[in-house]
Amino acid sequence: MATLVLSGCAANSATNKPEASAQPNSAPNIIFMIGDGMGFEYISAYRYAMSEIGSEHLASTPFDDLLVGAATTYPEDSTWVTDSAASATALATGHKSYNGAIGVDAQKLPQQTLMELARSKGWSTGAVATVQVNHATPASFFTHHPSRSLYNAIADSYAQQVTEGGWSFDVLLGGGYDYFNRDDMNWLPKLEQQGMTVVTEMDQLDTVETTPVLGLFAPTALPFAIDDEPERLAQMTQHALRALTHKSAQNGKPFALMVEGSMIDWCGHANDIACAVHEMADFAAAVEVVRDYMKQHPNTLLVITADHSTGGLTLGQGGEYAWYSDKVMGINQSLEVMATALLDLPKSEWREYLAPRLNLELTEQQWQQIAAITISPDLKGRSRLAPIRNVLVPIISEHTRTGWTTTGHTAVDVPVMASGPGADAFKGYIDNTDIAKALLKLVR
Amino acid sequence: MATLVLSGCAANSATNKPEASAQPNSAPNIIFMIGDGMGFEYISAYRYAMSEIGSEHLASTPFDDLLVGAATTYPEDSTWVTDSAASATALATGHKSYNGAIGVDAQKLPQQTLMELARSKGWSTGAVATVQVNHATPASFFTHHPSRSLYNAIADSYAQQVTEGGWSFDVLLGGGYDYFNRDDMNWLPKLEQQGMTVVTEMDQLDTVETTPVLGLFAPTALPFAIDDEPERLAQMTQHALRALTHKSAQNGKPFALMVEGSMIDWCGHANDIACAVHEMADFAAAVEVVRDYMKQHPNTLLVITADHSTGGLTLGQGGEYAWYSDKVMGINQSLEVMATALLDLPKSEWREYLAPRLNLELTEQQWQQIAAITISPDLKGRSRLAPIRNVLVPIISEHTRTGWTTTGHTAVDVPVMASGPGADAFKGYIDNTDIAKALLKLVR
Repeated sequence: MATLVLSGCAANSATNKPEASAQPNSAPNIIFMIGDGMGFEYISAYRYAMSEIGSEHLASTPFDDLLVGAATTYPEDSTWVTDSAASATALATGHKSYNGAIGVDAQKLPQQTLMELARSKGWSTGAVATVQVNHATPASFFTHHPSRSLYNAIADSYAQQVTEGGWSFDVLLGGGYDYFNRDDMNWLPKLEQQGMTVVTEMDQLDTVETTPVLGLFAPTALPFAIDDEPERLAQMTQHALRALTHKSAQNGKPFALMVEGSMIDWCGHANDIACAVHEMADFAAAVEVVRDYMKQHPNTLLVITADHSTGGLTLGQGGEYAWYSDKVMGINQSLEVMATALLDLPKSEWREYLAPRLNLELTEQQWQQIAAITISPDLKGRSRLAPIRNVLVPIISEHTRTGWTTTGHTAVDVPVMASGPGADAFKGYIDNTDIAKALLKLVR
Repeated sequence: MATLVLSGCAANSATNKPEASAQPNSAPNIIFMIGDGMGFEYISAYRYAMSEIGSEHLASTPFDDLLVGAATTYPEDSTWVTDSAASATALATGHKSYNGAIGVDAQKLPQQTLMELARSKGWSTGAVATVQVNHATPASFFTHHPSRSLYNAIADSYAQQVTEGGWSFDVLLGGGYDYFNRDDMNWLPKLEQQGMTVVTEMDQLDTVETTPVLGLFAPTALPFAIDDEPERLAQMTQHALRALTHKSAQNGKPFALMVEGSMIDWCGHANDIACAVHEMADFAAAVEVVRDYMKQHPNTLLVITADHSTGGLTLGQGGEYAWYSDKVMGINQSLEVMATALLDLPKSEWREYLAPRLNLELTEQQWQQIAAITISPDLKGRSRLAPIRNVLVPIISEHTRTGWTTTGHTAVDVPVMASGPGADAFKGYIDNTDIAKALLKLVR
């Protein structure tokens, strides 16, 4: 990871203590971290995966002293289970909406977002995500669209704000290069003409001195943490904080930053427990970065929540009273990468490929199940991975005793954590719209 | 339900306000409520089941403003998943132990429980449960045994304390008559000789004026709330509070009461969602009783938690973004009672019996699945229910989109709620032993 020296912020001094009770002289910086799909069970899984079975004490996590409550996540339209778009819209605007909505209410009317309000008050703003920056969660904080699937239109919204001279972000880091540089439209030179720094490699950020900056580090989503750079979210978060602190020092106004651990959700959809724990580790590392920042800049409010829980993860399966965290940590690649590789290998090499990646004592019957997988020629693209996943997931579940109930989301309430000035507003059971309302109130 | 007039307590006055910040002049009464198996997902399920789909606001629950954090529940001995005995021992004594332990540590040494310490300080004590009072959770607060399965020995421990003149409880209400009145030993006349009032019908409690009192309202566990008296836990809790308040008023000392919503866990083991929601409703009604009590007696600390989560419940199944709370609430009998009844009915009558109890639009294929159930003559007793359950659970799950991953417990962290003097000690992520340590400290 690139080393960074965080620049100082005029509003803060090292003598202040970053206590929840710190009384700010002015509105605090807001850092809103969203673990996409991060239900309570993901935090439990992460903690136990970091701990040693039989040891006297559990590993501590950066979440432990932050938990203050839980949030309901139901959308406006359907039967209690939200998607990421409706939930991000609730978290960004304080309005319930339908599944698929990006920054618009149930009547498809645009609603002011936290970032737009902050911007209107002269604050600096930014977002960090591990998926494309035009994906549902970041998009709902900066744009307004009737459907999350309008990826090109969402990228266009970000870019048009810039070319029209009123962009809504100072720093935007994540994936999504292919949406900004398309056959029908290459926004990147136009953005640079407007003074925006565009970077495509993370270490380029080390030398970026000015805002606004757009970092697009992958064609769409970044690779999974388990497969590649394990702390890419923490690294982007550190860069974003440096840029926003610099900007804030210049104009004397606070900043608002949204940090999304986007791919916890993707591992959940894939029912891939090792993948999920590694995404949690990167999210936790990003929380550490923020907490270190808050020690130096105590007039900063940190709020952490999830938009929903994904996959129906539980840490118990098939009647046995155990969850084998050690076996989970022995798996060293995502199911996505494993299944993709298997498609290109002759069946005779599958076992040799999988054994050192799964690190599980599969029975001969399980190896035979894997050898019997057939990929129908009717399947195209990513759907060719499904037959492999459908066999590997139950095998991994049985060995690790990890439970999953769906490839979608659940209605179960999600954790709410908070620290810093204003943190008291997030206690107890609240609704996801209440989180947004409390944050909007701090900016107003 | 019997009407009760709660008698006044000398230590309190109606002018006090039941705020968390109330400063007691003396140690507060402690009411420790344990929802056995009540993970976060059970509270979400209960709230959505009480709410109307599409309505603008969710139903409020007595839990909403009480949530302060979450607890880890791992036992001393195994891989993160606790049973009720190890967890109750942790919650009662502050010591981690092995699965099966009743009030003893990992070396099988008895450890002082909250109730024993309270007793030694002259406090009044009591417990309420919907299962037999010698079941793991209440047993761990009053007795010490190497194994939870020693039901007779645990009943003997309660009774011997009495006959030896130093009993540990003033009020003990629940099931378990058959353990106290056995072929080899009938404790009940002996207990009455020692001045204990023994009752076997709940409305007998209306006229009980003195303590100690033992109420044994069923041979083993009470019936499920969905099948019988829906508020039996709330009713027992009200009686227990009246008795303890009366005793406290006499001796000027506080009381400690443990209230267990025992059968939330049993519904979870059975993967029976309607049963679970109705048990949650009774537990919530008992919480309401306690909260009403606290309005009149503000020097009272309420702590609510779970010993673990059961069944791997999630509110989402099979990829669909929905949880059909209305369909769950249409089911009006426990799987246990339904399956037991089917065993005595000719197959030709099964559909007619089940249809008005499930209230689900089963497909013809599903009815055929049910008709095809065979009960092997090798199966005896309760295991004869399993083939019926194994078919009904997936059908109910598919219709209601309820997920389950195990017939056992999970390692996922559980909710912690608190209100009243001392409530601040339970905030954030804590361990289940920390809950006991904080309570023991209040008594010392």
